[in-house]
Amino acid sequence: MKNIFDIVIDKVNEFKNPTCVGLDPDISKIPNHIKQKNLDIYGNTRKAVGKCFVEFNKGIIDATKDVVGVYKPQMAFYESYGVEGIQAFIDTVQYLKSLNKIVIEDAKRNDIGNTALSYAKSHLGEIELINSTERIYDVDLITINGYLGSDGIKPFVEISNKFNKGAFVLAKTSNKSSVDIQDTISIYKNKNIKHYLMMMEFIKKWGEGTEGSNGYICLGAVIGTTFPKDAKIIREKFPECFFLVPGYGIQGGKAEDIISCFNANGTGAIISSSRQISFAYQDIKYNEKEYGLAAREVTIQMRDDIRSVLYGNKLWI
Amino acid sequence: MKNIFDIVIDKVNEFKNPTCVGLDPDISKIPNHIKQKNLDIYGNTRKAVGKCFVEFNKGIIDATKDVVGVYKPQMAFYESYGVEGIQAFIDTVQYLKSLNKIVIEDAKRNDIGNTALSYAKSHLGEIELINSTERIYDVDLITINGYLGSDGIKPFVEISNKFNKGAFVLAKTSNKSSVDIQDTISIYKNKNIKHYLMMMEFIKKWGEGTEGSNGYICLGAVIGTTFPKDAKIIREKFPECFFLVPGYGIQGGKAEDIISCFNANGTGAIISSSRQISFAYQDIKYNEKEYGLAAREVTIQMRDDIRSVLYGNKLWI
Repeated sequence: MKNIFDIVIDKVNEFKNPTCVGLDPDISKIPNHIKQKNLDIYGNTRKAVGKCFVEFNKGIIDATKDVVGVYKPQMAFYESYGVEGIQAFIDTVQYLKSLNKIVIEDAKRNDIGNTALSYAKSHLGEIELINSTERIYDVDLITINGYLGSDGIKPFVEISNKFNKGAFVLAKTSNKSSVDIQDTISIYKNKNIKHYLMMMEFIKKWGEGTEGSNGYICLGAVIGTTFPKDAKIIREKFPECFFLVPGYGIQGGKAEDIISCFNANGTGAIISSSRQISFAYQDIKYNEKEYGLAAREVTIQMRDDIRSVLYGNKLWI
Repeated sequence: MKNIFDIVIDKVNEFKNPTCVGLDPDISKIPNHIKQKNLDIYGNTRKAVGKCFVEFNKGIIDATKDVVGVYKPQMAFYESYGVEGIQAFIDTVQYLKSLNKIVIEDAKRNDIGNTALSYAKSHLGEIELINSTERIYDVDLITINGYLGSDGIKPFVEISNKFNKGAFVLAKTSNKSSVDIQDTISIYKNKNIKHYLMMMEFIKKWGEGTEGSNGYICLGAVIGTTFPKDAKIIREKFPECFFLVPGYGIQGGKAEDIISCFNANGTGAIISSSRQISFAYQDIKYNEKEYGLAAREVTIQMRDDIRSVLYGNKLWI
């Protein structure tokens, strides 16, 4: 049976590109012509900000849609604007789906029992109205946090199985202070192992039995590019787990570091970059009206860098 | 200087009640007269569900507002209905604030750097519009998850200090599978300790320097009632940390178990119950139109149970 990661692999092959573009809008960095237009129409309101987000995102998406098949909106930046921000998130996801893109929602949700089920149903499945059910966020994959244990993860596995969706559980994140908790030594089955490796053991256990045609379970793992040695160890021990790899670009991750995130057959990871793409116009020689062109250039650069490290002179596997 | 937990202690003293009422609406359990009314007005839509949530919550709040000073809406149940659910959350919080209640948002948010700051600003502080800032969710306290380390927590401390707010970090949760991760043995400063105790060490460190008049730091901890022996150990080692204690009632926590969550002076914990209060009408002999009366009875019972265990024959400290 095909699961979500078979669909992801098909999409990666379609674009010959194992990367994804993050959509993390920041009103202070959105080009002035977009801000002024929405300010004129909606005033200095949350609605104006939400409209700016959607317009800006569509510019990024349109400029990169022939290059990449997977996008990752970060929920925090939308949720922060309440109703109007959530509307912008939903509008962005719907636009991506109209273009047949895969959407990874970066939300790091976590809770237990019925509450976790409520998150899983609304983000990946269907919610209950008074007399029927309907889809609402309907993303393909969501990031989640495993600190609460199996009670918190099983609802996501259940809903993923039902709707052919999936989740990435935080394991070894790309930030410097990921060492605080994730790198401590845990005693697991009488062995001393790093905490993130124990989390990986749980992810493997929680996802058991959900393997798709390519052998990946429906629970992936978030593994930062910024710790390539750690990624290598995790990749070798957990070939059945698909990685979401943030931190490429702005957080210091480099193309040569990411090769260890892939399995030998060249699958098993999606490499993500967000701000470095969205706000590329601030870093490279474009004016702010050309923010889409700037984003496109950096997206192509990321694809080509990763291709060359992964496949050398061959364009694709 | 007063911090958020001084304000919480004042509120607890005002009501002589160290408990809080959870507001976790579930459309399948909301009384039919509320559903029918909103169905007639808004049709079978998310808007109807959102309106049901607010009406139902107001019924619970009005029936308990002379008994308790702290409420805890669970964000998952609102967020699940998108724009209309977020509106219901905001309407509920605004109603609570109009009654001078303290609001703990149960959201278990977590991320790093700018993203964590975005969560902190929007839920506890102010967001940036195009030309100004404004408050949006504006709750008093939020639950957060510390798995990402200090990068993820510092933005919440920074915003808490600025706006006199606070956060509860997940430490030892009330669900059965909290043992998966939280009870494993970690090696911390050359000692073998349970993982949740290590998390507590980090919470203490992250909150250092934020102590208020009563000695509590602005970062509290979520500690389930369902593991009273663990709670006792944590309480003794971390007197500067205020506890949010869910799991009372439906998850199996009992009044005699919770005494260990308080410091010797009778402060240091808020005990929470949600579904057992909201949907009490299904368990005790009331008809569904009397759901507020049922909630009131259970809220008073919880207060009195905890008072009697904490203070014996004395009504209050």
